[in-house]
Amino acid sequence: MDMKNDRFFGVLIPVLTPFRRDYEPDLPTFLSFCRSLLEEGANGLAVFGTTSEANSLSLRERRTLLGALIEDGLDPKLLLPGTGAAAIPDAVELTRAAVEANAGGVLMLPPFYYKNVSEDGVFAYYAEVIERVGDPRLRVYLYHIPHLSGVPITPTLIARLVDRYGETIAGLKDSSGNWENTATLLKQFPTLSIFPGSERFLLQGLAAGGAGCITATANYDAALIRRVIDCQDGAERDRLNRRMVAIRTVFEQHPTIPALKYALAKRSGNAAWNTVRPPLRPLADSAGQALLQALKAAESDERVPL
Amino acid sequence: MDMKNDRFFGVLIPVLTPFRRDYEPDLPTFLSFCRSLLEEGANGLAVFGTTSEANSLSLRERRTLLGALIEDGLDPKLLLPGTGAAAIPDAVELTRAAVEANAGGVLMLPPFYYKNVSEDGVFAYYAEVIERVGDPRLRVYLYHIPHLSGVPITPTLIARLVDRYGETIAGLKDSSGNWENTATLLKQFPTLSIFPGSERFLLQGLAAGGAGCITATANYDAALIRRVIDCQDGAERDRLNRRMVAIRTVFEQHPTIPALKYALAKRSGNAAWNTVRPPLRPLADSAGQALLQALKAAESDERVPL
Repeated sequence: MDMKNDRFFGVLIPVLTPFRRDYEPDLPTFLSFCRSLLEEGANGLAVFGTTSEANSLSLRERRTLLGALIEDGLDPKLLLPGTGAAAIPDAVELTRAAVEANAGGVLMLPPFYYKNVSEDGVFAYYAEVIERVGDPRLRVYLYHIPHLSGVPITPTLIARLVDRYGETIAGLKDSSGNWENTATLLKQFPTLSIFPGSERFLLQGLAAGGAGCITATANYDAALIRRVIDCQDGAERDRLNRRMVAIRTVFEQHPTIPALKYALAKRSGNAAWNTVRPPLRPLADSAGQALLQALKAAESDERVPL
Repeated sequence: MDMKNDRFFGVLIPVLTPFRRDYEPDLPTFLSFCRSLLEEGANGLAVFGTTSEANSLSLRERRTLLGALIEDGLDPKLLLPGTGAAAIPDAVELTRAAVEANAGGVLMLPPFYYKNVSEDGVFAYYAEVIERVGDPRLRVYLYHIPHLSGVPITPTLIARLVDRYGETIAGLKDSSGNWENTATLLKQFPTLSIFPGSERFLLQGLAAGGAGCITATANYDAALIRRVIDCQDGAERDRLNRRMVAIRTVFEQHPTIPALKYALAKRSGNAAWNTVRPPLRPLADSAGQALLQALKAAESDERVPL
């Protein structure tokens, strides 16, 4: 039996969270946006990720949004909610809610307040959450994003968790931005479903046994990323890939979350998309205009036709 | 009228949070420990600080502990609870609870998940919390601890907040460990109550107009620190100060929170003190024994008699 059968594969989207001008989550827009991402070809929705400003949301807000998605009829197996937290009780409550909603898995940050903590301490955190949830349906995807969490998910930590918890440890998102790290993990943990955090490494990753990508930019171009994954013609795939990377490169010139929201506000005509919660700030219009022009150029470049 | 009249001054203690072996807060021990710290001479209790493992506690746990302290009859004016959070709704809820309990002030972390955020964004966070709480009783002490929060409280940020919110911005705790930074702030903001995060800078700070110190080590030696502050005899004060700094130096050789808890477990005979929440880990007995010996040496050094 293929251990990866019930695993995520393809392009997963850390869904942007729309806010009203008063900073409250804009629930109708959130629900319709999630539906539209799936229609565009997303293989899964990694709601409550870094791109979702999840740590700027209260526990209650995340539970409310998760409940609303389920109630809206979205297939829970397509959901990979972020449930990691600085405090174990919070991580347990969110993880339990996800499992009870039959989510396909959870993407779990390490505890991110203290720095230079021991590997033993991070292991103890994951162990405590997994054992308190205590549900055989739980599938944990570890979240390696050291430039924000300050706490790396090291190979020895992964090995200890897999050794103790077996298939409960289903995979990992590597947002280090360092392909060498992803390559090492793919080689060392062939039974895990490993996602680079950028489509820049999508094809390399797939060729090395990776599971796709979980990427912020997919909020903007999920359909294109999905085409890169599905394309069987090598030359065509390379062309699509160049365009996809060109778009990624444009967003990388800006603060990613405000830039994505700016682009979505313009595309949808819904200005509310521009709202971000502090400490993030919306993109200034001057930067936004430059962003739109650069996107237009990347998308109309004849060397990388769509 | 002295603007600093209703301000904290002296030695404030970021109170360690005792946990039972199952990681639940040990409420009776917490309450009796808070009372004993005040009896020893603490001028205030900065509960829910970094040393308190506050970000390893859920919002509900912090609210429960705060409520229990008030119900226990502790003078709320002596409380400076930590209320900063990554998410604005959490910071608002905790801050409002503190103000409604008539706490003397709140010690507010900046939002600590995103890094390299703009000063504008951090300003917007504090502004949003202050305005949503919307209570003239609110007194905010800003919390500068860049090695953990990743988000500095810069002089220009402080100036903007003071300019906009006046005496609502009451002070600052500087846990940078950098005396030059504290000295700069003391000079630039003489109307604020500024606390170094270490008793190592206590006398320098007091001489330059500082308000005392808010220090982890005071969980162990509050009475000594208070004596240094109160002592009027220069030579005696220098001797006390040397002993105080020697004790600080011992704790700095170890992970501070587990080391303080180890020392308290031994002193009190209550082994539960040794429990820390992951990602922290308790001090190993070998390190603990070395700690106790070094403390004994520092405390019996005849060159620094008590």
